[in-house]
Amino acid sequence: MKPEIIKKRARALRRTLNKKRITCLLLTNPANVTYTTGFLGEDSWALITDRGLWLLTDSRYTEQAQKQCPHSKIIERTEPIAQAAAQLVKKLKSIKTVTVENSASLAAFEALKKNLNTRIRTAENIIEDLRSIKDQNEIAAIKKAAQIAASALKKTIRHIKPGITENELAGTLDFQIRKLAAVNSFPTIVAFGPNASLPHYQPASRKLKKNDTILIDFGVRYKGYCSDITRCFAVGRPTAFYKKLCNAAERAQAAALKMIKAGAEIKKVDAAARSVIAEYDLPVYGHGTGHGLGLQVHEAPTLAANIKGKLKAGNVITIEPGVYIPGKAGVRIEDDILVTKSGYKILTSNCPV
Amino acid sequence: MKPEIIKKRARALRRTLNKKRITCLLLTNPANVTYTTGFLGEDSWALITDRGLWLLTDSRYTEQAQKQCPHSKIIERTEPIAQAAAQLVKKLKSIKTVTVENSASLAAFEALKKNLNTRIRTAENIIEDLRSIKDQNEIAAIKKAAQIAASALKKTIRHIKPGITENELAGTLDFQIRKLAAVNSFPTIVAFGPNASLPHYQPASRKLKKNDTILIDFGVRYKGYCSDITRCFAVGRPTAFYKKLCNAAERAQAAALKMIKAGAEIKKVDAAARSVIAEYDLPVYGHGTGHGLGLQVHEAPTLAANIKGKLKAGNVITIEPGVYIPGKAGVRIEDDILVTKSGYKILTSNCPV
Repeated sequence: MKPEIIKKRARALRRTLNKKRITCLLLTNPANVTYTTGFLGEDSWALITDRGLWLLTDSRYTEQAQKQCPHSKIIERTEPIAQAAAQLVKKLKSIKTVTVENSASLAAFEALKKNLNTRIRTAENIIEDLRSIKDQNEIAAIKKAAQIAASALKKTIRHIKPGITENELAGTLDFQIRKLAAVNSFPTIVAFGPNASLPHYQPASRKLKKNDTILIDFGVRYKGYCSDITRCFAVGRPTAFYKKLCNAAERAQAAALKMIKAGAEIKKVDAAARSVIAEYDLPVYGHGTGHGLGLQVHEAPTLAANIKGKLKAGNVITIEPGVYIPGKAGVRIEDDILVTKSGYKILTSNCPV
Repeated sequence: MKPEIIKKRARALRRTLNKKRITCLLLTNPANVTYTTGFLGEDSWALITDRGLWLLTDSRYTEQAQKQCPHSKIIERTEPIAQAAAQLVKKLKSIKTVTVENSASLAAFEALKKNLNTRIRTAENIIEDLRSIKDQNEIAAIKKAAQIAASALKKTIRHIKPGITENELAGTLDFQIRKLAAVNSFPTIVAFGPNASLPHYQPASRKLKKNDTILIDFGVRYKGYCSDITRCFAVGRPTAFYKKLCNAAERAQAAALKMIKAGAEIKKVDAAARSVIAEYDLPVYGHGTGHGLGLQVHEAPTLAANIKGKLKAGNVITIEPGVYIPGKAGVRIEDDILVTKSGYKILTSNCPV
């Protein structure tokens, strides 16, 4: 990320903290640390006050942090991280209350309490809420992550032939992603035939038949940002039943997309997709219709039936209705969508199939 | 895991809980849930009392849980997991205090507190300590994970030739792992030449030269259990300096191994490896000499300079001294070791190079 972007984020975060009367926030969620400081390494926390921004890291990451975090003071810790955080707070003197993200572990919280003289409070979703509205740089990174995924899938499709196993196909796709100098955003799912009816299937040794069906759910991480795509298709001759499932999922996705714009009620978007599946007299999927996408492959906002709230311009979300017939077949279609003021943009439109 | 193994584990855990006067333990660490119930899915907690063992999962995993957890009562939740846990506790009636693993998040703890009428306490390292002593089934699984890794590396080595990038080599290795129907235990590190001086390097676009050096740090997960191996070697003609680094790392590893048996002081094992590097007048590595290995790629015991405690028979650990010369070269040699009463067994001895 460009230094000026990071600076802008810290400013926006300070405004939010001011409104919430939080004088010192300790960031423990790695994605929040990345968002606020630019740091892409691991095992590091950040601390932000009105006066400064600190990254608590260790010697493995000092060089990387110096490059990636021009606006943070880098602290190379040698003690456990909670102890290092407590020492920093003590050194800053003026801090009376430290607010900790409630994604931190109890162990971290207990260690902080033991080492701190100040009060400790917890807070949730402060940076997560900021992250749910993407800026132009973030949108570009997600789009690039989608483009790399599309290129990798295009190259992979050539290798599909009867006899290939799910593992081999998943491995081929992952290899293409590596060749494009990127990494997976989560473990690739490849499911043949009836295996696709399990939304969380993991690829195994099943071989592709002459007439068969394939579900691929995969994504790429680029500069920290994720894409998340599902494609389903038949090899050989698809059955009428499989075609029906594909049609239902496609039309369900289209129905959800039609509802999307800033201000749209999330549960209505979710319901639009589900009602199409129900119209086809097919079982309605148990998972959400989509989720936010960014530095994490699942982040705010969640799109599900019980969610209150509205979509906002700058949200990047997946829309991924599915149809699952246990023991028979499964279909899911998933694209990555930017919510705009008046509608939406599909970031995964160049992905084949 | 065989059902009788799982049953035995629950019995051992109950004995420990009894000693610690814990009547009801809520397991939130996924590896602890796997260890205690046999469940290999995600997003699930377990609850154990003197009378029962429950797995709190959701509809995505019900079928899998029924197969993998013959000794657990499976609860298919629809509400958030902390709420479901609180409901279960209420239904059990007799429970006055719930003890939660302190690896749980503050958010989970706060949600539990809100929904529970009982007292809540926290505890740490109860199951982690049990897990640090491996039974025969676990040792067999880790050995198999090491064998698959060795096979994958053997097949990968054939593809090494000048011009291949780090990304391509990492991708080739990962592909071989997939073809063997296994998955990575962590993202593969491939570093050429001076890139190997960064212990947490991530593979990039550097191409292999005619005379060059390679570091590969990778592992395989098999039935939940991890292997973790590092190999370093030269292609073409190695320099005398590189040979010296390799000799130093090998001799450091040998010195640590020589110390290993049940009862050996961890810090002495660590010191044995470091002192060899120092004898060579080379910079002593900043990371630990090793770590426990099992359902997690890093678990108890940790082998480092500041660790009190002794090795125990049944520990499975890595021994991985390294030599890092910034901007020049890096070497690390890592094997997986079973600690026995009288010495050790190398689980990764069939891994090439």
